[in-house]
Parts: sequence; C-alpha cells; structure tokens
Amino acid sequence: MSNNKAESLFAFGLGIGTQNKHGQWLEVYFPRPLLRPVDLEVSAFIEAFGYRGGQQSIRLNADQLHALAKVGPEYAAFAATDRPVVAVFLADDVEPTDVPDAYLKLHLLSHRMVRPGTINMAGIFKVLPNVAWTNQGPVDVAELAELQLKCRTQGTPLSVSMIDKFPKMTDYVVPSGVRIADASRVRLGAYLGSGTTVMHEGFINFNAGVEGPNMVEGRVSSSVWVAAGTDLGGGSSTMGVLSGGNNIPISLGKNCLLGANAGLGIPLGDDCTIEAGLYLTAASKVRILNRDGQITRTMKALELAGRSGLLFRRNSQDGAIECLPNKKSIELNADLHSHN
Amino acid sequence: MSNNKAESLFAFGLGIGTQNKHGQWLEVYFPRPLLRPVDLEVSAFIEAFGYRGGQQSIRLNADQLHALAKVGPEYAAFAATDRPVVAVFLADDVEPTDVPDAYLKLHLLSHRMVRPGTINMAGIFKVLPNVAWTNQGPVDVAELAELQLKCRTQGTPLSVSMIDKFPKMTDYVVPSGVRIADASRVRLGAYLGSGTTVMHEGFINFNAGVEGPNMVEGRVSSSVWVAAGTDLGGGSSTMGVLSGGNNIPISLGKNCLLGANAGLGIPLGDDCTIEAGLYLTAASKVRILNRDGQITRTMKALELAGRSGLLFRRNSQDGAIECLPNKKSIELNADLHSHN
Amino acid sequence: MSNNKAESLFAFGLGIGTQNKHGQWLEVYFPRPLLRPVDLEVSAFIEAFGYRGGQQSIRLNADQLHALAKVGPEYAAFAATDRPVVAVFLADDVEPTDVPDAYLKLHLLSHRMVRPGTINMAGIFKVLPNVAWTNQGPVDVAELAELQLKCRTQGTPLSVSMIDKFPKMTDYVVPSGVRIADASRVRLGAYLGSGTTVMHEGFINFNAGVEGPNMVEGRVSSSVWVAAGTDLGGGSSTMGVLSGGNNIPISLGKNCLLGANAGLGIPLGDDCTIEAGLYLTAASKVRILNRDGQITRTMKALELAGRSGLLFRRNSQDGAIECLPNKKSIELNADLHSHN
Repeated sequence: MSNNKAESLFAFGLGIGTQNKHGQWLEVYFPRPLLRPVDLEVSAFIEAFGYRGGQQSIRLNADQLHALAKVGPEYAAFAATDRPVVAVFLADDVEPTDVPDAYLKLHLLSHRMVRPGTINMAGIFKVLPNVAWTNQGPVDVAELAELQLKCRTQGTPLSVSMIDKFPKMTDYVVPSGVRIADASRVRLGAYLGSGTTVMHEGFINFNAGVEGPNMVEGRVSSSVWVAAGTDLGGGSSTMGVLSGGNNIPISLGKNCLLGANAGLGIPLGDDCTIEAGLYLTAASKVRILNRDGQITRTMKALELAGRSGLLFRRNSQDGAIECLPNKKSIELNADLHSHN
Repeated sequence: MSNNKAESLFAFGLGIGTQNKHGQWLEVYFPRPLLRPVDLEVSAFIEAFGYRGGQQSIRLNADQLHALAKVGPEYAAFAATDRPVVAVFLADDVEPTDVPDAYLKLHLLSHRMVRPGTINMAGIFKVLPNVAWTNQGPVDVAELAELQLKCRTQGTPLSVSMIDKFPKMTDYVVPSGVRIADASRVRLGAYLGSGTTVMHEGFINFNAGVEGPNMVEGRVSSSVWVAAGTDLGGGSSTMGVLSGGNNIPISLGKNCLLGANAGLGIPLGDDCTIEAGLYLTAASKVRILNRDGQITRTMKALELAGRSGLLFRRNSQDGAIECLPNKKSIELNADLHSHN
Repeated sequence: MSNNKAESLFAFGLGIGTQNKHGQWLEVYFPRPLLRPVDLEVSAFIEAFGYRGGQQSIRLNADQLHALAKVGPEYAAFAATDRPVVAVFLADDVEPTDVPDAYLKLHLLSHRMVRPGTINMAGIFKVLPNVAWTNQGPVDVAELAELQLKCRTQGTPLSVSMIDKFPKMTDYVVPSGVRIADASRVRLGAYLGSGTTVMHEGFINFNAGVEGPNMVEGRVSSSVWVAAGTDLGGGSSTMGVLSGGNNIPISLGKNCLLGANAGLGIPLGDDCTIEAGLYLTAASKVRILNRDGQITRTMKALELAGRSGLLFRRNSQDGAIECLPNKKSIELNADLHSHN
C-alpha cells in the first residue's frame, strides 16, 4: 500500500482501551483522533501495522508498539503502557462496526471535529457493549458481581456510577471553554461549542449538541442541534428521534429561549421564545396574532417549523396556545459563559 | 430447633457490612439473599448460629465464620473477610426492625425476588441511619467532619456523593438486562425488570419499579408500578405516596406513554397516552370525546382510574383537558432495550 | 496592629487548598470558618501572620505553620500538612477578590453562619477559576488532558465528575440534620437548614437556600429563599436572577406547596399552593375567585407577589389560571425529615 493512502482516510486514531476477560473491547480512549489525516506519521502507521484498506481496528503487538515509540515523542505513552493499544483506520464514513471505531467517532464529535448528524452513527447501539462504569474503571457487566463480592471481602470500595453503553464525555474529552456542572449528564459523542455552560439539570446526548456559547439547563435529546446564543431553561425538553418522539430532528436557531419546564416538538428559527411551562408539540394548533395583538388565523405548530422571531405562549385567560412576533431578543449573561 | 425450620422462614441472608465507631450498622451487602429458603445450608446455619425464631440479625464471631467456610465453597468469602459479617433470619414478613433486615428486604426487591408493594416496608425511615456515602465507603455522618479534615491534611481525596438513608442500587445489585445512565438516581430497593433502560433523567425510588422492558426518562416515585412496554418520557412525574401527593398508589399498565414533562395523579390501564407537558391530577375535570371527536360528557380524572386505551391531552385552542380513544399504541425502540 | 483588631473583622478562616502548577489557587477548604470572630487566637494570628488590614489571603510559610501548632491543638492539622495553607482576613464584607476569600464566603453560607442574599457575592464568577473535579482531587482544566493520558498509560482510573467553578457542598460542609440524595446537585454556598431533605431531582444553587425543615425535589435557583415547612415538588422550577428569568428574587413563605413540574416566577407568602404542572410567571393574568368560587376580577400574577393563603391552578375546563383561597395547608411527612 502506497504512503499517500493516508490522505484518503476518513479518520484515524491510536487508542488505549479496556478489554474484558475474553479479550473483547469495552471502551477505547483516543487522546488525539484525526479526521482526514494528512500526517506523514499516519502513512508510516499504514505500513507498520499492515493496514489493508476499508475499516480496520488493529490491536498492536509488542513489536508494533516498539516501532511506534520511534515515530515521535508524542507516541511514547502508547509504547510505555501495558494496557491494550489499538490503531483504528477508517477509509470511509461507514456504520460503526466495532467498539474501537465507534469510540473513535464519538471522540470526533466531542473534539468538535465533526458536527452532530454529519457522520454515520447508524446501528451504534448494537455495536457498543453494556459496561459497568466504576471507580476502578470500566468492567464487563457479566464480570461485575464477582468483583463486587471480592471488593467487599477485601474492604475495597467499589462504586458503580453507570450501567450503560455510553460513558460520560469528560472522562475522554474536555473541550475548551465549557463548564459542565454534573458531568454524568453529558455523554461521550456530545458536541459542546466554546462558551457552553451545562447546568446540573442540563443534559446532552451523543450525536447532539450546541454550537456555543449556550446556556443548557434543559435536555438536548438525540439528534438535536442548538445554535449560538440560545438558552435552554431548567428542565426544558427537546423531543429526540430515538424514543417517544416523532421523526423530525429538532433544532433551535440563534438567540432563542426555551423557557424553564417548557418543551419543543418542532424546529425553531432564530430569536424565538417558548414561554416557561409550555410544551409545543408538532400537532398543537396555534392561534396567530399580529403585531397589534389581533388574531389573524390558526395554524398547526409544524407549519411554523424553522421560522424566526416568534414568541409562543399559552394565553393565561383562555388556555389557547398563541404565536406572536417576539419583541425582545434574549441575551446570555456574559458572566456565566465568558470565564469558562 | 429442628432442621426443617428453614422451610418456614420468610427470608434469610448472609451479609458483609459496615459499622460506625460504636459498632452500629450503617449498611449491609447481601450477595445472595434468599426468599423462603429451602436450602439445606440454611438449616445448618440455624443450628450453627443459634437462631431461636422470629427476627434475628446475628453478627458472626470467629468460630461461626470458621464453621461457615466448611459448609461450602461459596461461603469462603465470608470466612475470609475481616469486615463484619451478619446472618439475618426473618421468620415472617414483619416491619423492618434493624439495619440488616431492612437491607435484606431492599435486596429482595432489587433482585426481583418480590415485587414492590408486596412486602412490609413500614417504618423503614426510622430504622435506617443517615449515612455519608463516600469514595472511601460508607461513613457515619457524625464521623464525617473529622475524616474530612484528616483526608485534607493527608492530601487524600474524599468525595461525598450522597447523605442519605438509601444507597444507590448498583453498588449492591445490578440485575440482568438493564441500562442505568446515572446510577445515583436508582435507590437500592428499586425493582427493574429485564430490558429496562433508565436514562439520565429517569429515577426509581425504593419499593417502586418497572416490569421491563421499559424506557424510564421520568420519575418512578414511591409505591409506583409500571407494566411492560410503557415509556416514561423525559422529566415526567408520577405522584408518590410519601410526599406532596395523595394516597392513591399510581400505576401504569402496558404500552402506555407518559409524555415528556407530563405528570400523572391517577392509575392508568393499558395503552394509554398522556400528551407531553400535561399534568393529569386526580381532581382534573376531563372532557370526554367519542371516536368521532364529539363531546359526550365531563368526568373527574379519578373516575377514569385504571381504564385502558385512553389518550389525554390539553386542547390547544380552548385549554380544556380532553380524553379520547387512543388510536395509536406505542412501541419501544427495540435497539434501546434488546441489547442491554 | 493591636490585638483587639480581631473583634472588628467581618470574617476569618484558616484553609487547606489546592494550587495548580503555577501556584494559583483552585479551591480552599475551611474546616472552621469564623464570622465576626472574637477569639483570642485570631488576634494572635493577626500578629503572627502580619495582617495589615482590609482583605488579605496569606499563604503561610513553614515558620508561620510552626507557630500555628503552638496556638492550640485544634491547629495541629494545619501545621502537619504539606498541602498549601492559607489564612484569610476580611475586615469588611467586600466583593470576593480572590479564590480563598470567595471560598470562605461560600463556607459561611453552607455553615449557616449567614443567610443567602445577606453578604456581598458580586463578581464571584470572575474570581473563581474553572476546575476539573476528579476522583484524584481538583485539577486545573488546562492541566487535565496531560493527566488523563498519563493515568490511561498507567492504568489508573481518572474520573471527571464536574467542570465548574463551584464544587459540590458535601465535599466541604455537611450541615447537621440534612439528607441529600444526589450531592452533585447542591453547590458549595447553598444554605440548607436543619431537617432539609433534598431528593434526587432537587437542586440548590450557591447563595440560595431553604430554612428547614423542607422537602426539596425541585430547583432552588440563584437568589431563591424558601421558608420552613415548604415542599418543592419533583421537577418544580423557581426562576433565578442569573439566567433566563427576570430580576425579581423569588421566595416562598412557610408551608407552601410548589407542585411537581410546576414553576414559580413571583415571590409567595405563607400557605400557598401552586398546582402540579402549572408554571406561574410574573406576567400571567390570573382570574381571582372568592371563597364561594365566584369570579371577582382579573389581576397580573406579579400584583399578588408576597400574598399568603392562595391556591393557584389552571382551570381544567377552560384553561384559565385561577387564584382562590387555599383551604388546606400542607404538612411535611415527619418521617422524611425528623430522622435526618
């Protein structure tokens, strides 16, 4: 294989991971994932590791690790560890096929190298194993009960913080300029732009995210995208495409406010406000008011998808959901974002 | 006491626990709790530990631990530890009387050996001590400040994740076929049937649970029971009987959808839907529509308790809560449950 | 400086903290913060540490630590540690100027020495650095990536639970008589009166709090104050002054019930109830009913700010927000608070 092959790769990563007792991967950490790499080093790796094209996750042997150390000082860590090391080559953006390449893609998202919805993540639930995430590291769920008894016997604390396919992002990637008040609520594969503050009630799923700066005190469900300057209020909900919602990917434009405990079932344009406590579903029938407060017509919320400058509220006197021109645009509190 | 006594026991457990400096139990871990045990071993234990009937929690001494190792290899762990070991005998399902028997009952629930609401948990709040759950194990709250100063002086990290009577379930029991995205939100004593996925916003109290498979992104409060196939949307609420609600235990039948940010104050039958954002309290007056969408009458929500095939929504044009026949039954996304 | 200077100090604290590689403070732990100290010891410290007045945070050198041990046995811990020790003198309640004095003020709040809103916390976001809170202790965000790679290479688990300016309270202060089911949701600087139970869905920000006893299953946002006996239902929201809300500090009087998934945008007096699921914003127009259920007038919710004995609900038949005399006063479940 020729050395210029690296330039046509979709992605490459060298990772350190964890395997269960049967040698199956549980998770992989990639300190420096590469998208469309043009590094000379990657070309060297293609030769050294025997990459033959397509998708390959190659567990490196002692000789290969030895060779790695010679490529450059930044690879010394991989050569020095006795943890399993893997090299992932992805010629194309195909569906995840194994744990290492699925984790590489999750890293690309959280490193802000690709935006949510722009790479192929289909079928990832089938590829990722369910893992017990403990204070002693990741453990195969099937091996947990034995470890629990052993730790109890020895008086060694063992705490299990998650039983899940997706780890928390911050154990792998902490992008610059963010605050995350409760890191257990941001999955690896979430995209957090600079200036993002995720408060305790905020949540961001994998393959979803916010452009930054943003205040996130609500839930950014699967496939949801939020543009800069938008504030998701405490406990607010965005409908995802995986469970319970419909199949319209939700997005919010710039400088929107989704009020506390509000919810959103349609995409919004810029400068929109959803009043605190109002859940706007796609099927809601909405009374349209003009700038003078006069009723002009009734529309389905879905017909307003993507429109800018709208304020949605429930009339507190007659219970109707109303939509009117949004007079005040919101502004984030710079103190909460500029010093992240 | 005759050897056949074991057959009449309600429950038995051998546990390893933690005591404070005064020798009082803080918590107990039971790797293999037994309900109505018929094991020959238990009969042997009755003799060896001097069980006299009724409820007894017997802290085992060195001789008894020595004897334990001879009963079978699966007891070797108890004999080998220098942590306190306790044998709990429960002749009948009486109210919890001490920490070991309260923890034994919590284990029975999380091991799916009994369903929520079917065993006597009355007065458990008075029996369980308030514990500081730390990365160094459980600590008596009264002993915490001294430990904090000591750890600070030594530069040893001490992190306190909970100050509570109930620990998180996963540190004691991880039932098969579940995912729990944030384990701090599922208490020991919760019942999670196989195929249950608890997302980050989900919560399950002790003595409450879901039959499985279920998607839980909302809160399963005390005494609540959720049947198979039902989806609790993000941030949804079920009224509990301990605090703030009334005294009607809430349940949801099969294949219901409690929408995101919705709430429920009455029991539901099968195939019901509560629209996202609607809180249906027992006192709500509900407009009843027939299949043709015509208004037939008005009823109190409580009168509809336990009925199947209903859709509840708030009319977005006139603000009335409506109930009509539910045309679409929900289906869980198999990807999110079948690979747990 | 004369020895009687101590009596005029606003606050004093001796703390053990963490610094980054550049010697900058990340956080400080004060085991015994003092408000308006009159202790003779503090006078001695003024001399020994060379305090000159105003605000000073003095990192103690070896000689000063040596002198400290002689003052009394309770200072032995400070003299024995090789972690950085700081003495903070605050002559007046000025804005936070550095990390040690900001942390001292946060401790005063959580130790219940001052109530939220009564001390000067202006500009604290600019003073506090963003810190990675890990199972290995606090780490400068800029130093995290290197540590992550190192830990991975060595096979040492490194878990990052928060990226934030504020730590969780329980790692610094655990006030008496409280339960906190998920400690990651209570920031240092929160005020929790005795008898407070914060459930998993509860949250309390810094410089906000509850008088105790209280049930907190909802969010106590910045600047919010809740009086004794009041119950915040699951997922309930109180509008804060930092982000997304307006500038009216929200408070709730005694024995109020903010229902599950409800929200509050005005201050309430005593004995008020907001029905589950209702978000009462300041701008809501409210239909006023008298004791006989007759409509008397319509008012803006803001005009009802601070009034006692009111019940707010949304009429389930016509969607109007109504306010009527509250017939039943709530009572906390003593079991959930008296055994904390």
